Amino acid sequence: MSGESRTPVSVLGLGSMGRALAEALVDAGHPTTVWNRTPAKAAPLVAKGAVEAETAAAAAEASPLVITCLTTFEDTSSVLEPAALSGRALVTLNSGSPAGARAMAAWATGRGARFLAGAVKNVPSAVGAPDTLLYYGGDSTVFAEYETTLKVLGGDTVHLGDEADLAALYEMAVGAMLLPALVGYFQGAAVLQSRGLPVSSMVRFAGKWLDMIKSLLPLYAGEIDRGDYTDAASSVNLFLAAEAHDHELAAETNVDTTWLAPLHDLVRRALAAGHGEHSVSALTEVLRKPVG
Amino acid sequence: MSGESRTPVSVLGLGSMGRALAEALVDAGHPTTVWNRTPAKAAPLVAKGAVEAETAAAAAEASPLVITCLTTFEDTSSVLEPAALSGRALVTLNSGSPAGARAMAAWATGRGARFLAGAVKNVPSAVGAPDTLLYYGGDSTVFAEYETTLKVLGGDTVHLGDEADLAALYEMAVGAMLLPALVGYFQGAAVLQSRGLPVSSMVRFAGKWLDMIKSLLPLYAGEIDRGDYTDAASSVNLFLAAEAHDHELAAETNVDTTWLAPLHDLVRRALAAGHGEHSVSALTEVLRKPVG
Repeated sequence: MSGESRTPVSVLGLGSMGRALAEALVDAGHPTTVWNRTPAKAAPLVAKGAVEAETAAAAAEASPLVITCLTTFEDTSSVLEPAALSGRALVTLNSGSPAGARAMAAWATGRGARFLAGAVKNVPSAVGAPDTLLYYGGDSTVFAEYETTLKVLGGDTVHLGDEADLAALYEMAVGAMLLPALVGYFQGAAVLQSRGLPVSSMVRFAGKWLDMIKSLLPLYAGEIDRGDYTDAASSVNLFLAAEAHDHELAAETNVDTTWLAPLHDLVRRALAAGHGEHSVSALTEVLRKPVG
Repeated sequence: MSGESRTPVSVLGLGSMGRALAEALVDAGHPTTVWNRTPAKAAPLVAKGAVEAETAAAAAEASPLVITCLTTFEDTSSVLEPAALSGRALVTLNSGSPAGARAMAAWATGRGARFLAGAVKNVPSAVGAPDTLLYYGGDSTVFAEYETTLKVLGGDTVHLGDEADLAALYEMAVGAMLLPALVGYFQGAAVLQSRGLPVSSMVRFAGKWLDMIKSLLPLYAGEIDRGDYTDAASSVNLFLAAEAHDHELAAETNVDTTWLAPLHDLVRRALAAGHGEHSVSALTEVLRKPVG
């Protein structure tokens, strides 16, 4: 298929993720128009065949499919304010809250655009790989029409449903593991350093540990969906017992473990709520605030 | 090889992990002696061919290789107090602090035993699988002599070094990801429930997210080992920007996100220490308490 027959796409916002998105589209032969607030970022893409638009409005008006990768939804609507969006498909790929995605959808449809809000669940270097996950919520006609083009950005491309805030919602739900898991890893790194051991020596073990955690996710999801925590592979009490070790470790290494205190509090609240012998997934009940 | 030629092993402590260890040994044809404080736990193992000892001392004295899977190091030395351990190889597989492992080593060697302290980095159902990881620290002659037997418990069996507290140290370093990552997942579950969506719908996405985190571990280890955080794939500032979304999410869903506050504090402390544009792995520097 020649470049001429591929959907023309505009990409606004050329941070590291936006550049990766635009590059994947150029490489796949899509006529690609790019724009960035700081024009220098466009140069490597122009060298590969992209066209640089002088303004955001010109970029948005150059293609039927407009992909934005700006910092926030507020940035996105502000940058697109002067653009004629009627009849265009607007796809956002930025972080933001579900409320922000809903506001963006109202703004975009109010200007006559069809709207999809998506999220890239990976790092820029993974863009374009067959296994890279991107998910979208919003107008299913946009997804149906441009699915092939969107799959250029990552082979595992999913439409979550018609509600424009679904990607933001799943992004926050799934992403809630990231910072806590990383800080746990960095704490482990600091523990090894306190003994003069290289952090690289734990990489293989930590990777296996993440594999083990991954293997438990369907089990926990089932327990939570059923609201039945009685068949506990790892009980709340088991995690309660681990707290004392954390304190001993903090005492003998030079590591600040105070960030773990609210996690131990959650475990104790689960115990107090009668979940001691229940699965640790019963912590979900404690994380839900009482309604009213 | 007939059962007679396999190393006789005693397993003390038949909780879910201890039972799995004993069963793997019985299944592999090792003459296996078992003991548990509550004798009923031994029955299924005895039905498979294990011999139940009446006392912990009798169990320990029945085999050259004694594996304990009791709750703590204190329980272990208390249970073994009446046993003649001279000349035996004692292998502990329980949770505990590095200090606890060192005290246990002193106790065991003081009684003439050779000592290894290990940890199973997996769930009981994974015991015996070729990929299951167990690591050990302590007397390398025990590891060399019994490596084949120890590999019955998991094919990925590693000797970390001669110091008896190394498994406890790595266990704590690697294990520091577990509770934080799980609570992140349970928070995500509560977020989806607040919208009436099944938690099972996020399992695949969360699994991919863990794969992505796993793929970053060697990169972060290298940055921390070099102490060079300047080539940032994901900067401290990027995580700082995510905090606002967490607050918005807490506001619109019925989920208690207060446990994240100290994590956001760590991110802000890294910013204050000049790491804003550095890799998020620079949080390791903040987790290390100032010496003195």
